[in-house]
Amino acid sequence: MDAVLRQSKAVCPFLKKASPATLRALSTASRSSSGAALEGSTLAIEASPAVESALVASSPCGGALSKLQLLAHRCPVMGKAMAVQATRVGTGRVSGMGVRGVAASLSVAFSTSARPVSGTGSATVAHGCPVRPSPRASVTATAARTARLHSSRSQEARAVDGPIFSDKAPPGVPAAGKAPKTAKSDSKTAAPAKLQTKFDYEDYYESELQKKHKDKSYRYFNNINRLAKDFPRAHMADKEDRVTVWCANDYLGMGRNPKVLQTMHETLDEYGAGAGGTRNISGHNQHAVQLEETVARLHAKEAALVFSSCYVANDATLATLGSKMPGCVILSDSLNHASMIQGIRHSGTQKIVFRHNDLEDLEAKLASLPLNVPKIIAFESVYSMCGSIGPIEAICDLADKYGAITFLDEVHAVGMYGPHGAGVAEHLDYEAHSQGRPSGSIMDRIDIITGTLGKAYGCVGGYIAGSTKLVDVIRSLAPGFIFTTSLPPATMAGARAAIEYQMDYAGDRRLQQLHTRAVKESLTAHDIPVIPNPSHIVPILVGNAELAKQASDMLLMDHQIYVQSINYPTVPVGQERLRITPTPGHTKEFRDRLVHAVDSIWTTLGLRRTSDWAEEVPGGFLGVGAPPAAENKPLWTNEQLGIAKAVQEIQRSSIPATGVTEALLEREAVATA
Amino acid sequence: MDAVLRQSKAVCPFLKKASPATLRALSTASRSSSGAALEGSTLAIEASPAVESALVASSPCGGALSKLQLLAHRCPVMGKAMAVQATRVGTGRVSGMGVRGVAASLSVAFSTSARPVSGTGSATVAHGCPVRPSPRASVTATAARTARLHSSRSQEARAVDGPIFSDKAPPGVPAAGKAPKTAKSDSKTAAPAKLQTKFDYEDYYESELQKKHKDKSYRYFNNINRLAKDFPRAHMADKEDRVTVWCANDYLGMGRNPKVLQTMHETLDEYGAGAGGTRNISGHNQHAVQLEETVARLHAKEAALVFSSCYVANDATLATLGSKMPGCVILSDSLNHASMIQGIRHSGTQKIVFRHNDLEDLEAKLASLPLNVPKIIAFESVYSMCGSIGPIEAICDLADKYGAITFLDEVHAVGMYGPHGAGVAEHLDYEAHSQGRPSGSIMDRIDIITGTLGKAYGCVGGYIAGSTKLVDVIRSLAPGFIFTTSLPPATMAGARAAIEYQMDYAGDRRLQQLHTRAVKESLTAHDIPVIPNPSHIVPILVGNAELAKQASDMLLMDHQIYVQSINYPTVPVGQERLRITPTPGHTKEFRDRLVHAVDSIWTTLGLRRTSDWAEEVPGGFLGVGAPPAAENKPLWTNEQLGIAKAVQEIQRSSIPATGVTEALLEREAVATA
Repeated sequence: MDAVLRQSKAVCPFLKKASPATLRALSTASRSSSGAALEGSTLAIEASPAVESALVASSPCGGALSKLQLLAHRCPVMGKAMAVQATRVGTGRVSGMGVRGVAASLSVAFSTSARPVSGTGSATVAHGCPVRPSPRASVTATAARTARLHSSRSQEARAVDGPIFSDKAPPGVPAAGKAPKTAKSDSKTAAPAKLQTKFDYEDYYESELQKKHKDKSYRYFNNINRLAKDFPRAHMADKEDRVTVWCANDYLGMGRNPKVLQTMHETLDEYGAGAGGTRNISGHNQHAVQLEETVARLHAKEAALVFSSCYVANDATLATLGSKMPGCVILSDSLNHASMIQGIRHSGTQKIVFRHNDLEDLEAKLASLPLNVPKIIAFESVYSMCGSIGPIEAICDLADKYGAITFLDEVHAVGMYGPHGAGVAEHLDYEAHSQGRPSGSIMDRIDIITGTLGKAYGCVGGYIAGSTKLVDVIRSLAPGFIFTTSLPPATMAGARAAIEYQMDYAGDRRLQQLHTRAVKESLTAHDIPVIPNPSHIVPILVGNAELAKQASDMLLMDHQIYVQSINYPTVPVGQERLRITPTPGHTKEFRDRLVHAVDSIWTTLGLRRTSDWAEEVPGGFLGVGAPPAAENKPLWTNEQLGIAKAVQEIQRSSIPATGVTEALLEREAVATA
Repeated sequence: MDAVLRQSKAVCPFLKKASPATLRALSTASRSSSGAALEGSTLAIEASPAVESALVASSPCGGALSKLQLLAHRCPVMGKAMAVQATRVGTGRVSGMGVRGVAASLSVAFSTSARPVSGTGSATVAHGCPVRPSPRASVTATAARTARLHSSRSQEARAVDGPIFSDKAPPGVPAAGKAPKTAKSDSKTAAPAKLQTKFDYEDYYESELQKKHKDKSYRYFNNINRLAKDFPRAHMADKEDRVTVWCANDYLGMGRNPKVLQTMHETLDEYGAGAGGTRNISGHNQHAVQLEETVARLHAKEAALVFSSCYVANDATLATLGSKMPGCVILSDSLNHASMIQGIRHSGTQKIVFRHNDLEDLEAKLASLPLNVPKIIAFESVYSMCGSIGPIEAICDLADKYGAITFLDEVHAVGMYGPHGAGVAEHLDYEAHSQGRPSGSIMDRIDIITGTLGKAYGCVGGYIAGSTKLVDVIRSLAPGFIFTTSLPPATMAGARAAIEYQMDYAGDRRLQQLHTRAVKESLTAHDIPVIPNPSHIVPILVGNAELAKQASDMLLMDHQIYVQSINYPTVPVGQERLRITPTPGHTKEFRDRLVHAVDSIWTTLGLRRTSDWAEEVPGGFLGVGAPPAAENKPLWTNEQLGIAKAVQEIQRSSIPATGVTEALLEREAVATA
């Protein structure tokens, strides 16, 4: 297979360019809906209906099509070759298909897990793909397809105006639906339609689920009932069964904030449970108006628009802009959230992925585009699974230089950074915003900011903020906004109360930062491999899906601590982790228990510690075991936290570096007692 | 232009087949996000990235690309021709482009509104498209493109690994961003990169908004604050400014149901405002478990899954199944909701649209597909804008015969039909379900039922119900489910309370049906053109966007009655309407005022009445002015409503047919007083 690969790489610019990881992702059967797995590729895998129909008509291969095969259909060279072969099958000539094509071979070469080959004959009836068909062959294929469209059909297949299937050419589906899990070497795939069995849906579902079980990405949900009056604790299915939640995104505990709850109770009584309609038809109200005004004010933008969730906000906004602006190109950070990846995919426009936080790579890609092409740079402020922070100002500079607009997802930052909690963009001009001077600031330069009402603001929903016209365009054109019921009045009122509370009061986010520092310091003191970053996220590297789940289960069962393990596809295989999110409610007692529990589990399971990673991987892995880097200095400075003097005093005493924050918090507790 | 069209139709099978309406829709600039407009076409307009990139590189036309042009790029004949032309432009040979192609010409021929041609040169630098290029030309084009990819770049364009743009070939965007609203006849489009200006985003947004204003589809939201204690009344921006809401989808008033509100208050106090995470990470709780159990029980299915909205449920489920099942084909009713259209588009799979409720058309299309191909028939029970009802049982029969699964959207029916409010599918076996025998029923035969918690159940959110494995597959694979924050505990608890309330009590939906009948009868008595249907929807035909909005505005301003006008793209142009939704709260006083107000506005604006439609359109329009049809008999029979005897008694008296229900309601009011 290596020879095939080398040979293919030599003749094909795509294969030459694509990374092994990309090719591996492309080799799995059909498209991944999760998106994350494909982010490494600059080619989104939306098959156009035309391609798809040609493809189904021309794919006698018994197994499911791999993404690579889908792509191959688009290749000017491979596509034609496959079409020629398909036409032969379509007209009944199934024999002589021994020549296996590059696409099919590569699917095998790159597959990490053996995908269940469904149906019969996939081994023998693969696409026969001569690498360079003559132009004549291509023309013949087209002519043959056209002819087939106009040929008379069998009795069973009535005349229709839509479809393009010949009932003699079995498309890329199991010929025998009943036994899709065993790959029989049977060449009788072109059986007449009457002998075909129906597709077995339940069997198909089962095989999909088996795949998830096999690669350990099957998700088991934990029943966690977070108690408003006992934050950050929760009960499980049994009310008496209490645990401490260490992985929720209610970062500031606003979900139990009395001001928020009171507002919601009142709104519920006055305006009822639901909005009763879409924004256009009876679901627009003062709560929506006021919430959007507040969001716009928070980000110092002209306007804002609220969605069911920030997933929908990102998806709808990118899909709409990308599909509407003529020739639009979207440049996307390689670690972007699934909602953005989906939005870009749904836009159907050209996507270019740049390496995570890599300005050089981004600039090179921007520079290759004509100045007058509309471009969107889509990125995040805080990347939620590793805690890294995007170089916002530098990206604004590049956007200005190359005529792009910026789309910044502040989902994991709103409420928690900046003097008013507007996010990292606000935080970068802390002084100016403190003094109410947003003009000319970095936040001011961002064209589109998206955020959530469901994390630091403790409710649910998402939004975009930007210019009046931009917001009006999305309001007017995005189906995901137009055709859906508004958020309930109480939710919108509660979210607004949460935003305003955090605009006025910085105590919660300050304490959250201190608790984060304390946890990171304490874990570090225990040689626990925290992935270093400048934000409030505490990712602990495990590096194995089963072990990560085991550690999570042990924390829950043995220590009554709930930290969900983060596995593929949320993070790449081999980077599995526990992701810990401290809140203002995680006081010393909770922190000590957490660190002790993690430490004991690391010992029990024999998991790699920071020193192990440093030893095994020269230069460290994901920053673990690497020397401290400037980019991982906390974004919140001691000055901004108002602890500069106290920290200096503590540092002068004999307390070790990993105990400074605990000492500081103790001192604060005494002071406020 | 007619000559071009005739000639084109003669040579092109696509043009020959496409209806004028489809071609008109395709001729508007760029893609419509609303989806509804394109539903008539079996070709979704997702440009694949590969197509898109080729397209951008090859589209020097100054104006925005029409959908027809996008399609043309996919056509084996036109696509090549356009590529050849683009390559010529790309290498600097801009002159000699006088030959206007079929696609460009047809765009003009079919455009109903003159789309703003942005940028310069669109008149002269259209695609030059010889109808049949020689194979040689096609090969040359490919070679030229390849050569361009490997050519050295100018200083400004650095080497990159992703993109495919030559900085000399201006893509399909305005060359001069500043003046996109005037179409200058300027042939200097291939100006050197350094002279190019940046894309003017604000200007672009403005031009999109102007389009909406021009075709009267720009939406003005009304600030409507529905009062829980004064249902069905609301206040506008000013609290004293009261109106009666006649178009909300809180069909049963469950948004103010005391049981629902009490449950929400309690849950809010105990579990806080938000869920705090995705279902996988700390957002899974007893409220989700119990709600999904209740939904599954409601529909007598093995399992259910709750989403942020039913828009997301439909989108995520269809996109996931369509993209995952190998070779899947989705058959979609032509009046399906935007969420389903988007889901199908996002699946990237083959879509076949069948005519609304047309079983023959559906069967013909099913029969044309091989038996073993996985197929999904996606349709609705109650179509919300016209009130028609899908032939559920017959579709189940077809699904069985041709090996398809059924995907039934019961969004506008759950809570309101069936002995337990499970929807139309349940209603069709009223007796069996009343007696708790769902097995073998029509509802039992449906594979996937989707519903909302935001309309008759008065809250927010959506769901799917089906087999355990199906639900687990969607739970495991759909990004729109996985990567989003759960609904708040109080919302889920409230929705569950609403479902259980309606499972036990049929009084609300019974009264809603009676009020609906009374309104329809009274409007009919006044010669107001109600579009006939068997459901609870009361659509009044206007047939003109401006007049519909005017009627709506007059109702609000002059009569304090809120009924939003329904215009394109929610309904086709020429079918604009007012859509009235009676609830159990719309008592006689409200009904009388409504009918009087509508009647007077019809007179003032000189709108067509039923008799006018009957006279002007032979056989009526949308059923208005047509003789009564059996399919429009109310789904809820007199027996099911428990009014058979009373109605017979009333009919024996001298009361006219259009007064029966009012007389009945009066009698009931007396009886219960």
